[in-house]
Amino acid sequence: SRSINLAVIPGDGIGQEVVTEGLKVLSAVLPQDVKLETEEYDFGARRYHATGETLTDADLDALRRHDAILLGAIGDPSVPSGVLERGFLLKLRFAFDHHVNLRPSKLLPGVATPLAGQPEIDFVVVREGTEGPYTGNGGTIRKGTPHEVATEVSVNTAFGVERVVRDAFARAQARPRKKLTLVHKNNVLTFAGHLWTNVFTKVAAEYPDVTTDYIHVDAATIYLVTDPGRFDVIVTDNLFGDIITDLAAAVSGGIGVAASGNINPSREYPSMFEPVHGSAPDIAGQGKADPTATVLSVALLLRHLGHDAEAARIEDAVSADLAERGALPARSTSQIGDALAARVAG
Amino acid sequence: SRSINLAVIPGDGIGQEVVTEGLKVLSAVLPQDVKLETEEYDFGARRYHATGETLTDADLDALRRHDAILLGAIGDPSVPSGVLERGFLLKLRFAFDHHVNLRPSKLLPGVATPLAGQPEIDFVVVREGTEGPYTGNGGTIRKGTPHEVATEVSVNTAFGVERVVRDAFARAQARPRKKLTLVHKNNVLTFAGHLWTNVFTKVAAEYPDVTTDYIHVDAATIYLVTDPGRFDVIVTDNLFGDIITDLAAAVSGGIGVAASGNINPSREYPSMFEPVHGSAPDIAGQGKADPTATVLSVALLLRHLGHDAEAARIEDAVSADLAERGALPARSTSQIGDALAARVAG
Ligand SMILES: CC(C)[C@H](C(=O)O)[C@@H](O)C(=O)O
Ligand SMILES: CC(C)[C@H](C(=O)O)[C@@H](O)C(=O)O
Repeated sequence: SRSINLAVIPGDGIGQEVVTEGLKVLSAVLPQDVKLETEEYDFGARRYHATGETLTDADLDALRRHDAILLGAIGDPSVPSGVLERGFLLKLRFAFDHHVNLRPSKLLPGVATPLAGQPEIDFVVVREGTEGPYTGNGGTIRKGTPHEVATEVSVNTAFGVERVVRDAFARAQARPRKKLTLVHKNNVLTFAGHLWTNVFTKVAAEYPDVTTDYIHVDAATIYLVTDPGRFDVIVTDNLFGDIITDLAAAVSGGIGVAASGNINPSREYPSMFEPVHGSAPDIAGQGKADPTATVLSVALLLRHLGHDAEAARIEDAVSADLAERGALPARSTSQIGDALAARVAG
Repeated sequence: SRSINLAVIPGDGIGQEVVTEGLKVLSAVLPQDVKLETEEYDFGARRYHATGETLTDADLDALRRHDAILLGAIGDPSVPSGVLERGFLLKLRFAFDHHVNLRPSKLLPGVATPLAGQPEIDFVVVREGTEGPYTGNGGTIRKGTPHEVATEVSVNTAFGVERVVRDAFARAQARPRKKLTLVHKNNVLTFAGHLWTNVFTKVAAEYPDVTTDYIHVDAATIYLVTDPGRFDVIVTDNLFGDIITDLAAAVSGGIGVAASGNINPSREYPSMFEPVHGSAPDIAGQGKADPTATVLSVALLLRHLGHDAEAARIEDAVSADLAERGALPARSTSQIGDALAARVAG
């Protein structure tokens, strides 16, 4: 489309800094005839402390009118653990049915990895985003007593599993290696495990050109450090996906470069794009944050909206910038943003 | 005590081979006046195919009469996923109330790690063994239909959390660095998360000399590859412990050297010791399996039974053997066992 109407949520900590650079690069890459409108929303710790609100129905109505959402980071130590996570981040994922949580991992040339021998890493995790142990199902009895019992219920539906498995097969088919790995723990979590495994096997029959395999989540963490090149596309449940994508980010250059999309493929609701990293309050406001993960999230956003050429330009600019980084003196958040904006514009 | 009455479960795949070497080293290390009696039990795929049984009440009665159990590995591709895991391994952990699942990770000199720069790694994970998502709680409705719903319930009790947290504090206090990290996901799994966090905080007050911190499980996987030296003792839930101990094994020398104990600290039931690795059917019967993880599990077993000096002799022998390994031609399972037996005897 010839216009992008973007909701921008800078959020907490380094969120404002990295989002500023993400928008800088976005403005620089868009052709003149694509009109970019942005509206900024104040969510996160400040608003919570001022009003007690995290995300209201009116907020959801407002956000819903945008084509997409760019988020910096939400979370602050001044807010009790869980309040902003459940009250904002997860509430938004559930409200806008962001069932495809897309997290690419690519080790780019020149980027440091904690792994020895600089292995080749280029895979994508498709994490389910609206089910599993993230539903908030469960509860507590006898709270605070020696007889307290707390439960967490992982809810998995054929509907929810099948749509994300189908999305992952389609993504695998579109990539050169055409390989899809299901990650679960079906030998222990047998109820959910059978559902995931059966749906995966059923859908696989429709994609005979996609090679498939299955790995338990514990073993997957081993492969991610000993043989990450074995992965092409991974599909997995919400919690397993949370865990393995942080590890994946760590081995493929760190969370400074890890981008993610919370996607509603039907476009019934706007999708949201955000760096995998958090708000990093310890370095906030110092110009030390690396905006690269946010800039790469902007690329995912552009691809989602059909601006593939611009997305590729951003990814190429990031690759080139990272390749040269080792030779450069350390740069501030805005200097990195400036450099990337100059590259995509040129 | 001056006698050890051991139940031996070789199990499937490489189980028989590694257990043979474990027993060889055990016999070699014990002083003459400690009487070792062993009784072998046939569990696993063979028995399941022959009888349909995995672990009967009579089996549990028989096992219960022993001082401890040494297990090789259980699991075979010929058995549907989950049958032996839930029907034997987990059934035994629950029946004998093995609530402390102890998994040390130490990167020994000369041992290869996938991490660059050969970092110092020396920590212990205390994984809860009888609660969390492992209880088998949950179910399926409308199985096999497009409307299937499958649930898994994580059950957490103050009783169950407190006893394992106390065990972990005691272990942390006994180590030089006296540091304990709680790993959970308390910002999302808020019911279980609050219980774990509150119990941890409460017990911490009784251990003022133990330094504590908290890390989300996803972030913990990052630290395990970027800064594993930050960990001393970790306490965590059953599923998180399953995942991070495989990763911990991978970074600290591989599952060829990772030992574990399924411990009932009250000694009401015999504890069980086993390598973290599985039955590896692809290399079974070829003398290729590394028995080191089983031998180190024997050391954990000896320490549990109060034979600390013998446990230390085994650990020293393993360290010495691993340090020299790079200079030696590849050895078979029994050659490694012979070398370790010679060292502990000498
Ligand atoms: C902050 C938290 C709710 C979130 C999650 O667990 O999904 C984060 O860890 C992530 O991966 O985006
Ligand atoms: C085989 C399986 C039941 C087991 C577990 O998940 O506990 C294994 O992965 C382990 O870590 O001992």
